[in-house]
Formats: sequence, structure tokens, C-alpha cells
Amino acid sequence: MTVHQPTILSLSDIETMESRVRANLINGISGFKSANLVGTQNPQGQHNLAIVNSVFHLGAHPPLLGMIIRPHTVPRDTLENIIQTGVYTLNHIHPDIVPQAHQTSARYAAQQSEFSETGLTPFYSASMSAPYVAQSHVKIGMKLEEIQHLAVNGTELVIGRIQEIIVNDSKAIHQDGFVDLEALQSVAISGLDRYHSTQSLGRFAYAKPETKPHKISQ
Amino acid sequence: MTVHQPTILSLSDIETMESRVRANLINGISGFKSANLVGTQNPQGQHNLAIVNSVFHLGAHPPLLGMIIRPHTVPRDTLENIIQTGVYTLNHIHPDIVPQAHQTSARYAAQQSEFSETGLTPFYSASMSAPYVAQSHVKIGMKLEEIQHLAVNGTELVIGRIQEIIVNDSKAIHQDGFVDLEALQSVAISGLDRYHSTQSLGRFAYAKPETKPHKISQ
Repeated sequence: MTVHQPTILSLSDIETMESRVRANLINGISGFKSANLVGTQNPQGQHNLAIVNSVFHLGAHPPLLGMIIRPHTVPRDTLENIIQTGVYTLNHIHPDIVPQAHQTSARYAAQQSEFSETGLTPFYSASMSAPYVAQSHVKIGMKLEEIQHLAVNGTELVIGRIQEIIVNDSKAIHQDGFVDLEALQSVAISGLDRYHSTQSLGRFAYAKPETKPHKISQ
Repeated sequence: MTVHQPTILSLSDIETMESRVRANLINGISGFKSANLVGTQNPQGQHNLAIVNSVFHLGAHPPLLGMIIRPHTVPRDTLENIIQTGVYTLNHIHPDIVPQAHQTSARYAAQQSEFSETGLTPFYSASMSAPYVAQSHVKIGMKLEEIQHLAVNGTELVIGRIQEIIVNDSKAIHQDGFVDLEALQSVAISGLDRYHSTQSLGRFAYAKPETKPHKISQ
């Protein structure tokens, strides 16, 4: 039998941690995160690819996604390219491309492309001038809506509007609009460096006070 | 052999969808999300519990988490309570409490508590005046830092600072600060209503241009 020993970390425990340890802790404690590659290019056409675990749903109407970027860490080219061109792509990571996706976080020189350095392939659709990742099963074309500077810690909240969605399997988008991320093999991220596949525990019916919670499908 | 039929959804396809279908699509397309219960109470001490899939990491120093709240949908009490008391808790969902957690999204009357209605148990630590969920394996005490109104779609970005972290198994926080969400049984959410357990694909080494991507542990 496994005995679990609970633990409490106080504010002063957290504040006095070594900075790398605290970075791991705080990056992990919020729960699972989305796993995307952001594709951009500069006005001269040089493309750039960066892994981000900070993409989140902001609203369906209009269709908006948010993304947090730390200007003083890796994806500085990404932010510059988005500001200059107004467009970018989001590309889901699946198990076969996890090593390449993770490798895009290395600090390559400005003239190097993360596409060629990691072995991922740029792909352009008819309507987007930013590069998609050909290998991704879910590709989302984005137009920059606005950037909000978050003074509280100097990060940038990039808000974009969905322009186009390309999935490699039409059956993974159900009649009711539901996106079957398991059929599309999308992975989740925890912390800064761990990747996960998933197993469904079921879809649950819209909750009402007078009914008990129940599954509508797996 | 399975043949996958790719599909492209254009901007006009998305804009002309029935609103419920579009809500499912856009809520699902960003990838996996964290699964938390937000615990609050009003100044009179009545507690409130709401499921949120919008909690995200904002920064480690100071330790900040963000959360998107739509004021005109379910968790209105949650937002009011956070504004009035300045504190809230985040509590990870694990498989055993998925039905109860999902049920907190039902529109209970103002005088009802989602704790008693769903069978979850409020728990107060020595240093937080908002209720935790006793059953949760990961409990995070939060102090409101600021609320940013996002004019682009009328949502509120609630930014909070971590005050306390309580986990039910001290071994799930490694020496380097890494949080083992699988050991803690945290689940992920996709779309509006599907829950997932996870399987690790491994932790990857800090990426450098001159080294190939490789795992440092499972």
C-alpha cells in the first residue's frame, strides 16, 4: 500500500526557492497545457518556428485565441514577425514530432530556420502568408487582433483571430463541432519539458441543477 | 488501413456556423486545457465553486497564474467574490471527482452552494480565507493581483499571485521543482465537456542548437 505524505509550500518557501526550481514548480502547478508550434516569417520571407505551451481559448464569437510571450526569452523573432506581418500559424504537436518540436526551443542564430534545423517542413495554404508545419495534424491560421502588455510581469498577451482551420482527418470534427483531439493525436504539455498523450474519460452532458452528471459519449 | 480525409474550414465556413457548433469547434481547437475548480466565498461567508478550463501559467517570478472569465456566463458569483474578497483557490480535478466537478457548471440558485449540491467538501487552511476542495490532490491559494478587461470580446483576465501550494503527495514535487501531474492524477480538458487522463511521453533535455533532442526521464 502506498502512503502519500501531503506537503504544504508556503509563500516564503516559494519565494526563497532557487529560481530554476521555482520556474519548474510554477510552470507545472497550473495543470496541463496545449502544445503548439507557432509559425511566422519576417517581411523578407525568412521563416521561424517556436514551441509554445501558452495558447489558450479566449472566445468563440469572434473566434479568438490568446498566447503569452516573454519578450526576453526565446521567441523574440516570433513576436517581431507577428508584429511586422500581422499573421502567424498554430500547429498542434503529435507524438511523432515531439522531439523536433521540443528542439525548436534551442537558441539558433538569427539566420538559421528552426524548420530546416529540426527537420520540420513549411507548408503554405492559399490564404495564409505565414508558414504552417506540414507534419501537424491540426493547423490554425491566425490574424493578429491586438497585443496587450501585461505590466505585472512584462509579458505580452498576443490575441489573434482564427482565419482558417486545417485538420488531417475530417471525421475528427464531429457534427456538433466537437474536436476529437485524441483522433488527431494532439499531445499535452506539463511544466517546461514533459509531453503526454491522453486517454478519454468521457464527454459529459451539459450540467443542470435537477439532473445527475452523466456521460454522453466516450 | 484507415484513410484520413483532410478538411479545410475557411473563415466564412467558421463565421456561418450555428453558434453552438462554432462554440464547440473553437473551444476544442486550441488543444488540451487545465482542469481546475475555483473556490471562493462572499463577505458573508457563503462559499461558491466553479469549474474552469482557462487557468494558465503567466510567470514564475513573481508566481502568477491567469484565468479568463466570461462575466455573462456561469461563474458570475466567482468573479464577484474574487473582487470583493481578493482571494480564491484553484483545485485540480482528478478522475474520481470528474462528475462532481463537471456538475458545478449547472446554474444553481444564488443561495445554493456547489459544494453541498455536488458532494465536494470545503477545506480551509490556516492562511487562506477562501475554501479549498478537500478532495483535490493539488490545491493552490491565490491572491488577486489585478483584473484586465479584454475589450476585444468583453472577457475578464483575472491575474492572481500564488500564496500557498498544497499537494497530497510530497514525492510528486521533484528535487528540481518539477511537478509530476500524473502522480497527482490531474486530468486535462478538451472542448467544453471532455476529460482526459494522460500518459507520459517523457521529459526532454533543455534544447541546444548543437545537441540532438533526447529524453532525461519518463
